[in-house]
Order: sequence, then C-alpha cells, then structure tokens
Amino acid sequence: LGETDSVIRHVVLFQFTDETTVEQIDDYERSLVDYVATLDGVESYRIGRDARINPGTYDFAIVAEFADEAAFREYFDGARHKEIQRNTAAMIAAKASSQSRFD
Amino acid sequence: LGETDSVIRHVVLFQFTDETTVEQIDDYERSLVDYVATLDGVESYRIGRDARINPGTYDFAIVAEFADEAAFREYFDGARHKEIQRNTAAMIAAKASSQSRFD
Repeated sequence: LGETDSVIRHVVLFQFTDETTVEQIDDYERSLVDYVATLDGVESYRIGRDARINPGTYDFAIVAEFADEAAFREYFDGARHKEIQRNTAAMIAAKASSQSRFD
Repeated sequence: LGETDSVIRHVVLFQFTDETTVEQIDDYERSLVDYVATLDGVESYRIGRDARINPGTYDFAIVAEFADEAAFREYFDGARHKEIQRNTAAMIAAKASSQSRFD
C-alpha cells in the first residue's frame, strides 16, 4: 500500500472554556455526529467526555478513522465542518490533534 | 454496568522538543509497548506518529483501551510507567490527555 492508501487515524482533544455549558457540548457532539453521517470513508468516529479520573485532562476526545487521506480531507475541509468550527470556536480553550497513517 | 465496570479509553498526545531524535522516539515507543505487554486488562494500545498532513499537530498519539478503571490505574500508576515518564520527561514539549468511559 502506498501512503495515500493508508487508513488515517485522527485524534483530537479539546478543553472548553469555563463558560461552556453541557448543552453546548451536547449540541457540538450532535453536530459532529450528524455531519459525519453524511460522509463516505469514515470507518469509525468515537467521541468521549473526560471522566475526571486524572487531573489536568482535556474535556472532549475524538478518535476517528478514515479510509484514506482523501476521506480525511473531505471530512476536515468540508464546508459543514468549517461551519461547526466557526459555531464552536468561542467554546474552545485549547486543542491538540494528530493524524497517523495505518495499513 | 456501574461506572467502575466501564471500559476506559485513554487518549494522549505529545509534542516533542526540537532536540528529540527519531531514535529516542523509537525507544520511547518500544518501552511503552514492552511495558503494556506485562499487564492484564489492556484491551488495545495503539501508537501513531503524526503524518504531517495538517499544520500545528502533535507528534505522537496513544489511543488505549483498558478493561476497567482498575486496569487503567494499574497501567498509569505502575512503577515502570513512572520510570518511563522520568526517562522521557525532557523530550516532552507539550502533552494533552483524556480518559473516557464506555460500556
């Protein structure tokens, strides 16, 4: 398999501002899940809320797998994704992300 | 299932300092994989190196699933894990992590 055929694992962690409400986080999660349901090439898309087991953690985790880099780009660069990002930008205090390739 | 019976998904992202070598990162990965092989209750443990697809990303991702919170604590609080953390502390420029519960 060439690099462009590898599965892409996309990992994102968010910290929300103190002002962010649970309802806003629920809406954010629903928006992402509804958006992903419109796409091909999303092999898995898992969202987790931090369980407050360890100190200093981030609040919200996304672990997603895309069939290939093109499928990741379609997700990430999609107009609806950019709209969700704009709608939620004020909630985000910190973000960390990484994309890895897997065969 | 009660909370203590849920699977724990542990997500960690690291950025390494500019001085960190590929050999150091390889050693770090091998240390973690060898350590995890000594434990029970680790359902999956996947490490990824950032593919440089997007700007501003972290360098190294761990996505691990533990059978329950006790298995996560055994991993995280283990003497060997603390030793690995001490040995690699100087490599870590930034870290973000979260633990989520799943049934």
